[in-house]
Amino acid sequence: MESIGVGLIGTGFMGKAHAIAWNAVKPVFGDVPSIRLAHLGETSDELASLKAVEFGFAKSSGDWRKVIADPEVDVVSITTPNRFHAEMAIAALKAGKHVWCEKPMAPKLAEAETMLAAQRRSGKVAVLGYNYIQNPAIRHIRKLLDEDTIGAVNHVRIEMDEDFMADPAAPFQQRHEAVNGWGAIDDFGVHPLSLVRTLFGSVARVMCDMAKPYPTRKTENGDRDVEVYDIATILMRLENGASGLIALSRTAWGRKGRIAIQIVGAKGSILYDQERMNEFQLYVTSDRATEQGFRTVLTAPHHKPYDRFVPAAGHSLGFNDLKIIECRQLIGRMRGEETAAITFDEGILIERTVAAMARSFEEGCWIDI
Amino acid sequence: MESIGVGLIGTGFMGKAHAIAWNAVKPVFGDVPSIRLAHLGETSDELASLKAVEFGFAKSSGDWRKVIADPEVDVVSITTPNRFHAEMAIAALKAGKHVWCEKPMAPKLAEAETMLAAQRRSGKVAVLGYNYIQNPAIRHIRKLLDEDTIGAVNHVRIEMDEDFMADPAAPFQQRHEAVNGWGAIDDFGVHPLSLVRTLFGSVARVMCDMAKPYPTRKTENGDRDVEVYDIATILMRLENGASGLIALSRTAWGRKGRIAIQIVGAKGSILYDQERMNEFQLYVTSDRATEQGFRTVLTAPHHKPYDRFVPAAGHSLGFNDLKIIECRQLIGRMRGEETAAITFDEGILIERTVAAMARSFEEGCWIDI
Amino acid sequence: MESIGVGLIGTGFMGKAHAIAWNAVKPVFGDVPSIRLAHLGETSDELASLKAVEFGFAKSSGDWRKVIADPEVDVVSITTPNRFHAEMAIAALKAGKHVWCEKPMAPKLAEAETMLAAQRRSGKVAVLGYNYIQNPAIRHIRKLLDEDTIGAVNHVRIEMDEDFMADPAAPFQQRHEAVNGWGAIDDFGVHPLSLVRTLFGSVARVMCDMAKPYPTRKTENGDRDVEVYDIATILMRLENGASGLIALSRTAWGRKGRIAIQIVGAKGSILYDQERMNEFQLYVTSDRATEQGFRTVLTAPHHKPYDRFVPAAGHSLGFNDLKIIECRQLIGRMRGEETAAITFDEGILIERTVAAMARSFEEGCWIDI
Amino acid sequence: MESIGVGLIGTGFMGKAHAIAWNAVKPVFGDVPSIRLAHLGETSDELASLKAVEFGFAKSSGDWRKVIADPEVDVVSITTPNRFHAEMAIAALKAGKHVWCEKPMAPKLAEAETMLAAQRRSGKVAVLGYNYIQNPAIRHIRKLLDEDTIGAVNHVRIEMDEDFMADPAAPFQQRHEAVNGWGAIDDFGVHPLSLVRTLFGSVARVMCDMAKPYPTRKTENGDRDVEVYDIATILMRLENGASGLIALSRTAWGRKGRIAIQIVGAKGSILYDQERMNEFQLYVTSDRATEQGFRTVLTAPHHKPYDRFVPAAGHSLGFNDLKIIECRQLIGRMRGEETAAITFDEGILIERTVAAMARSFEEGCWIDI
Repeated sequence: MESIGVGLIGTGFMGKAHAIAWNAVKPVFGDVPSIRLAHLGETSDELASLKAVEFGFAKSSGDWRKVIADPEVDVVSITTPNRFHAEMAIAALKAGKHVWCEKPMAPKLAEAETMLAAQRRSGKVAVLGYNYIQNPAIRHIRKLLDEDTIGAVNHVRIEMDEDFMADPAAPFQQRHEAVNGWGAIDDFGVHPLSLVRTLFGSVARVMCDMAKPYPTRKTENGDRDVEVYDIATILMRLENGASGLIALSRTAWGRKGRIAIQIVGAKGSILYDQERMNEFQLYVTSDRATEQGFRTVLTAPHHKPYDRFVPAAGHSLGFNDLKIIECRQLIGRMRGEETAAITFDEGILIERTVAAMARSFEEGCWIDI
Repeated sequence: MESIGVGLIGTGFMGKAHAIAWNAVKPVFGDVPSIRLAHLGETSDELASLKAVEFGFAKSSGDWRKVIADPEVDVVSITTPNRFHAEMAIAALKAGKHVWCEKPMAPKLAEAETMLAAQRRSGKVAVLGYNYIQNPAIRHIRKLLDEDTIGAVNHVRIEMDEDFMADPAAPFQQRHEAVNGWGAIDDFGVHPLSLVRTLFGSVARVMCDMAKPYPTRKTENGDRDVEVYDIATILMRLENGASGLIALSRTAWGRKGRIAIQIVGAKGSILYDQERMNEFQLYVTSDRATEQGFRTVLTAPHHKPYDRFVPAAGHSLGFNDLKIIECRQLIGRMRGEETAAITFDEGILIERTVAAMARSFEEGCWIDI
Repeated sequence: MESIGVGLIGTGFMGKAHAIAWNAVKPVFGDVPSIRLAHLGETSDELASLKAVEFGFAKSSGDWRKVIADPEVDVVSITTPNRFHAEMAIAALKAGKHVWCEKPMAPKLAEAETMLAAQRRSGKVAVLGYNYIQNPAIRHIRKLLDEDTIGAVNHVRIEMDEDFMADPAAPFQQRHEAVNGWGAIDDFGVHPLSLVRTLFGSVARVMCDMAKPYPTRKTENGDRDVEVYDIATILMRLENGASGLIALSRTAWGRKGRIAIQIVGAKGSILYDQERMNEFQLYVTSDRATEQGFRTVLTAPHHKPYDRFVPAAGHSLGFNDLKIIECRQLIGRMRGEETAAITFDEGILIERTVAAMARSFEEGCWIDI
Repeated sequence: MESIGVGLIGTGFMGKAHAIAWNAVKPVFGDVPSIRLAHLGETSDELASLKAVEFGFAKSSGDWRKVIADPEVDVVSITTPNRFHAEMAIAALKAGKHVWCEKPMAPKLAEAETMLAAQRRSGKVAVLGYNYIQNPAIRHIRKLLDEDTIGAVNHVRIEMDEDFMADPAAPFQQRHEAVNGWGAIDDFGVHPLSLVRTLFGSVARVMCDMAKPYPTRKTENGDRDVEVYDIATILMRLENGASGLIALSRTAWGRKGRIAIQIVGAKGSILYDQERMNEFQLYVTSDRATEQGFRTVLTAPHHKPYDRFVPAAGHSLGFNDLKIIECRQLIGRMRGEETAAITFDEGILIERTVAAMARSFEEGCWIDI
């Protein structure tokens, strides 16, 4: 692989993050082929052209199919709204392109299954945009678990909370329609589940409750029923038998990007919060009793691949840096390396767990996965 | 009420805390009758006599019935193991004494109901030892809720975690026998429920899971099955419709006295953690957007009755001080004041919720209370 | 010593704290003689009588000399404004009483020296009210230093900040007159110095700056010049050669009882903040590099004498509890034990350091002590 | 300005940071000309060529003079060791190039003055690499100060601590030679001074102490004297009269990238710590008294230019992102915009303050600047 030709579809929050990552991955990591920013797709020629200049892409199109058809393109970043993922990813895979698709796979489990089938037929790499698992802190936590630093894990709690839907006076928006899914469990829940997979493996069963703090929202024509659930609370059992819970809220005032993880083992505990993504906390019983306490460990060059960004400890990576690492993992997969990434193979397990949560809520009982 | 004659049964952790409180309540609060430390009961004359000297009691007995029978005694502190609460409290109430009984009421719901019946027949005051609700921080949080500072509450999470059962190598102890109850839900769960009651009112329904991280423990004669559950996770709905969860663990390494509360309302959020009991956090949307954040508020004299202990802000109360406040509340009740305290009337609601949790776990479904 | 007869002069903030301590020391510690609350002195018979009832004292007087003359009194708590300390302490010592005197010794160094001389002549115990050094956390930090846990200390920073003088609109008060001393360096500075003494030993030299954020204050008759300095910043060298600094402010908005200590050694660091007095932080290089971090250690029964208050870790002591420990230390001294307490012998070293700070500020140069 | 041709000299820690910034500034900000990565200089042709591929530069040279001479180059990033800054910057300015030079200007004040003179003669833009001032949190703090949110500032404390020189067993290195300057005051001190300038303006006078925790270090031929000071403590007065202090340590175990700022005003306080660079704390007296507390504010899109990186609040920027912002500011200056950046004009004030600190230490007295 002399160089990698990149196609990018979508230029919103995630589209820009992909663009930044594609620009930075070579300067940051060095050990990757040259990156050719080949073709950018948007909903109009004008927007595509404008963004191509900004993001440094050579060509642009108002039709995403041209991006996928472009022989200069080896891999396609798909960062459009969730309902377009399936069609685009399947088309790209059929065209023999690798795929870097934003999470979740698709609003309906059936669609996600067809995406996986397409990937399997193509033999191409298809990586999902679960960037939180790429944090050197998270990867180090995984290493600590592998090394049995805290012993066998018996209990896990993950909370994901933001407040962008917290204002009851904010108007009805498309997000409140059932066509977009369930709300918290798919919009947020997939992130905690990506962390569960990365750190512990599979979820065996779930018991889910959902709540709708603001059942109606204002429109220009009066109030309209909100069809999704901004809050979800889930009891779970992992395959290894550990008990746990996931709590999700998009209406938690004051929380901005919280993903708080608590892991308890037989010999210690680990804590993490995405809002302070450059640190984690570790408690181990091997410390002398009178000085046992949660250590706040700042990420540093020895927590790989932090070192590729900054050679000094405690100097902080940012959200976009996680996407750069994810991009490096994708490239590794394209080169046959065993990198840490959630591909369609693993992503489908996340989607199935979300579907089980939904069924559990509807039936009011535990659902096995 | 010229003075109050005190009887104390039990001198362990809680017995000593009651003794300290009875010694301190007058110097701290001033506005109470003189306290006569009349009669201390323990399991032997020797121990009773020794502790009476230490705690300043005039008389002592190796038979708790003598404490209750003593005409010098107006109120009896019952701080013995839970399985003795019912017999002692009922006897004391029958003898016309007020009762200050440690939590929970009794291992079995039926016993607790007989305690309540005895209290109702007697017309005497019977207060339970739910000291965490007495923290000026908690009382101020209640005030903020009453004032609608964070709007209608739509979501609540309470975690109570300690690590005194966390060592898998620790031997089997009496606590692991089913005769003592369920484990986490009654040993710990009653505290979060006391806070739910104080802050929000009643729980409407629960869905409970329990886990046993170490199913066997060592004895001198080989391993023995652990009959209780050190971990419990509970989904709940409050009567006002808010969703919530309670998570309990006695095996959470690194947690020592954690009771972490998260309250989300339509206009803000409140956080609290018992391990930092002299502060709480408040987020309100009335702050300017660019400076909204969780305020760490240190308790101070304006958070009553902090002022009775220290006239300077941020100087910290301790665990025993909460018991002194509880003692003052009890005395208030004895004088007909409407103080904040959990009496048998309210305590029974807590016990019934615990029973519902147990049934929910056994049946694998939601239970209404 | 069968029992201890106590005299108390003053019933303000510190007077009440002493009263609470005298009531609690026996129930909390057990291993002390019975405490007789013999005689309470205040500025009028009425107030003295009222407070005697509240605090449980047998006798009361509107004349403090009667307290000192009372043969029932073995030890006198002196909690009056600083300018009365010398006269009262000297009289008490002359009358053959032990003395528990609030800090600082006196507004003028010369007076403090006479107090020390009186103590030496009397052969009685004279302990100063430096309660912050009694925190189990501080005592454990001292132990860690003794055990060389962090290696030779090379740098120390102590900040003490509150905000009770921070409002520029607050009126002129007696505290702003020079007759009460320098302001921050004596009102606050003595506390950090008590901690320096307890943890590290003597200060060798100081370089001090002082500032007056609000040079005038309102009175009923117009503005009046403030004669004291609410802020002081001090460079120091300890006798062991370590460099350090002390920063003091009574006008630091948001700080309520902050005493933040940073200790750096050759093998680690220790942090402490009085506003979270039930924890300290420890960083040691003996931890594996990838998990080094500041451990937040919660105080617990193994941090003596925390265990005398609560048998469970992380349950928190309060400010008044430190005074109870101080009382126990005083009683130990009265019984010839080598307890941790700052007596007049050590207190004078603190006063001399304060005097050196003042001279350094006036002369604009370093002053040796 | 159709496009900007970039020359880069040096590819270490800062060289890579500049390279990442030049690659990212257009995708992130959009509103800048196209960036041409024209010419990279290193100490050998091989290294230069290797790094040019990695960082995406078109040409490379083993001689930095070729970079400066290249007509394709409009602006030169100088990221070499401090002792080369003067020669390179002066040469670049003489060649009519804009300069982006890492901090500090030069080891000797006299050299720095010649750099300033060269910049003035050239009329070109010369910006220094003070990236910490570019944090949206810092810029928002400045805005709050401008808006008088906390009233007139009367006291400031800044601490900068790391532990990369903290190991006494680490060998002597070039950094320990006096030829590199004083140690803490120039290596670290310039960063706090850049923040002082950005937030408050000029320093009027300083009183400085320095310490050498490990006076000798191992070499292959026995111990060698350390010629620099790893610790410095500085009292200061700002031009506006506020008192303050700066404390610096390169041997503070546990600190990795700490720059802790405390700002006290007449109506509130602000806190910041670079180790948690995505938040700041604000205390204001306009909050109701019973809920006053330090608010932890997470940076968000409304804290410009955070929005250019991530459109969601609390998602975190990283260290390299600050360099991208700095790059954008530099480009702004090149286009005649009034951006926030420390040019040679302001940088010289920082260098003069460092020189005054050194003189103060040598003379043991206050030095006016």
